[in-house]
Amino acid sequence: MNYSDYIHIIGTVAFAVSGYLVGFRKQLDVLGVVIVALLSAVGGGMIRDVIIGRLPLVFTNHQALVVIFLSLFAAWALRLQRRRRKELHAAFILADAIGLAAFSLTGAQVGVSLDLNIFGVVTLAFVTSVGGGIVRDMLVNEVPVILRRDLYGSIAVLNGLAVYVLAQWHWLNAFTLNILFLSALLLRLMAFRWQWELPGFQQQDNDQAA
Amino acid sequence: MNYSDYIHIIGTVAFAVSGYLVGFRKQLDVLGVVIVALLSAVGGGMIRDVIIGRLPLVFTNHQALVVIFLSLFAAWALRLQRRRRKELHAAFILADAIGLAAFSLTGAQVGVSLDLNIFGVVTLAFVTSVGGGIVRDMLVNEVPVILRRDLYGSIAVLNGLAVYVLAQWHWLNAFTLNILFLSALLLRLMAFRWQWELPGFQQQDNDQAA
Amino acid sequence: MNYSDYIHIIGTVAFAVSGYLVGFRKQLDVLGVVIVALLSAVGGGMIRDVIIGRLPLVFTNHQALVVIFLSLFAAWALRLQRRRRKELHAAFILADAIGLAAFSLTGAQVGVSLDLNIFGVVTLAFVTSVGGGIVRDMLVNEVPVILRRDLYGSIAVLNGLAVYVLAQWHWLNAFTLNILFLSALLLRLMAFRWQWELPGFQQQDNDQAA
Repeated sequence: MNYSDYIHIIGTVAFAVSGYLVGFRKQLDVLGVVIVALLSAVGGGMIRDVIIGRLPLVFTNHQALVVIFLSLFAAWALRLQRRRRKELHAAFILADAIGLAAFSLTGAQVGVSLDLNIFGVVTLAFVTSVGGGIVRDMLVNEVPVILRRDLYGSIAVLNGLAVYVLAQWHWLNAFTLNILFLSALLLRLMAFRWQWELPGFQQQDNDQAA
Repeated sequence: MNYSDYIHIIGTVAFAVSGYLVGFRKQLDVLGVVIVALLSAVGGGMIRDVIIGRLPLVFTNHQALVVIFLSLFAAWALRLQRRRRKELHAAFILADAIGLAAFSLTGAQVGVSLDLNIFGVVTLAFVTSVGGGIVRDMLVNEVPVILRRDLYGSIAVLNGLAVYVLAQWHWLNAFTLNILFLSALLLRLMAFRWQWELPGFQQQDNDQAA
Repeated sequence: MNYSDYIHIIGTVAFAVSGYLVGFRKQLDVLGVVIVALLSAVGGGMIRDVIIGRLPLVFTNHQALVVIFLSLFAAWALRLQRRRRKELHAAFILADAIGLAAFSLTGAQVGVSLDLNIFGVVTLAFVTSVGGGIVRDMLVNEVPVILRRDLYGSIAVLNGLAVYVLAQWHWLNAFTLNILFLSALLLRLMAFRWQWELPGFQQQDNDQAA
């Protein structure tokens, strides 16, 4: 198992758990929670595969499905949903941030492996990492996380740019990917904590919230 | 002509007629009615083909287009739209249910023919059968039928699961497909008549209706 | 460089400028303006490539990206955004109409080159030319231009039909394409000026505006 598989599994577990937590918060039944967790974890990768004209990997490979059901079973065995509301929200933000950091890297790597240009690599990093969260939030009727602030989409773009540049320099390896993963995770959590945001798109965000 | 072609034609006729009826109810002109009927009948299959990275079949094969225009001509010759409002609504629900049952089977069979896993087969059954209805309802500005209750999407999922299991057991043939088609049709009509619904997603449905 | 490349560049410049003008009107910052202009210019072609199961051309070819950045630089050097509000709106309508006319032709030609039937050629003409405008308008939270009146989508459909028929007759060449381009542009500007519209879809347009 190479590093890319390993980081893909981390992202899958994280998004499945984020879907599990949202499903419980919205008081869905078991089937509803499973559907939301499943589509949160595989949605971004499916959108990416559709864009590059490839049969979605999850349609033929069982690995992601097994990882998702094990994650859901573990979350249920640990009774994650029994924690207090505040702890639950913190766990959701953490899981979502881990998924964002991991899938932006796997998406960008798919772009590099197809020899795409910088626009292609960044686009795949973006859709792979934010696609699942958008699907999840739309399924439970929330404003998609990407339309909120806190640098959410910018982090995906930054990781896409970094992977592209590192690949050009032949510096893409487990060590640099680990650094990107941890930096993205830290940046997202700090942006959430102190509500950092890009200045430019402020006006529309207000429109959408209204 | 094998059984799969035959059931595909039934679904195409049914969705074209459902689009014809909606178009008249919304008082569209001739061009509007034709566009809505056309996209209702081919929308689900196009979405499926895009997902599996295949050139949409309807782009190169004339069969579906011929069937659709013959259906529209027959509906017009029979003056379907002249019936009373209550009969029209019953005809719409029946046509939509036939299309749902037929296209969930053809979608699932495409998945089986590509050797997809259970998630892939169910997903293709779902998008093939509900895609056209979603496109149709969005074109005339109605809440998509899938967001209403009455087990609509669940029937597509059930047919996807059944086709997957039957294919594993090598029991997929014209006889078992006929049984699935009639069961799905009956289940949908009974669910509509007595407003059955899944318990889990109730809360969001209310949000969306509000 | 053949005629098709040349008309593709015209469309790319036009949609990039339309995105630039919208971005400034919405008071986005530099990054926001660049993103809106970029996605306006490449969005329609990407949607078309996804539909036909082809790796989006812009992911591997730098030409469109270079053209877009040169257009943005020129628009900035000419201080387009400093004009009076009324002039800006006229410039936006003109740029959008040029992009519509150009991309409906390039989209239809892709369909012809794949030997698609009339439905396929028209669909690709439509999505290639209106896709970018829809993406642009959704990014800045406006009602997509296609949902407004003034024959917007109809012009894309007419160009698709014309290219299909000309290709059947082996009359598709730089001269006939130029005539289609100029006719479409003129028709769109006249429809905008005198608010022409198709009769059929009127009712829904009102619903959407409400």
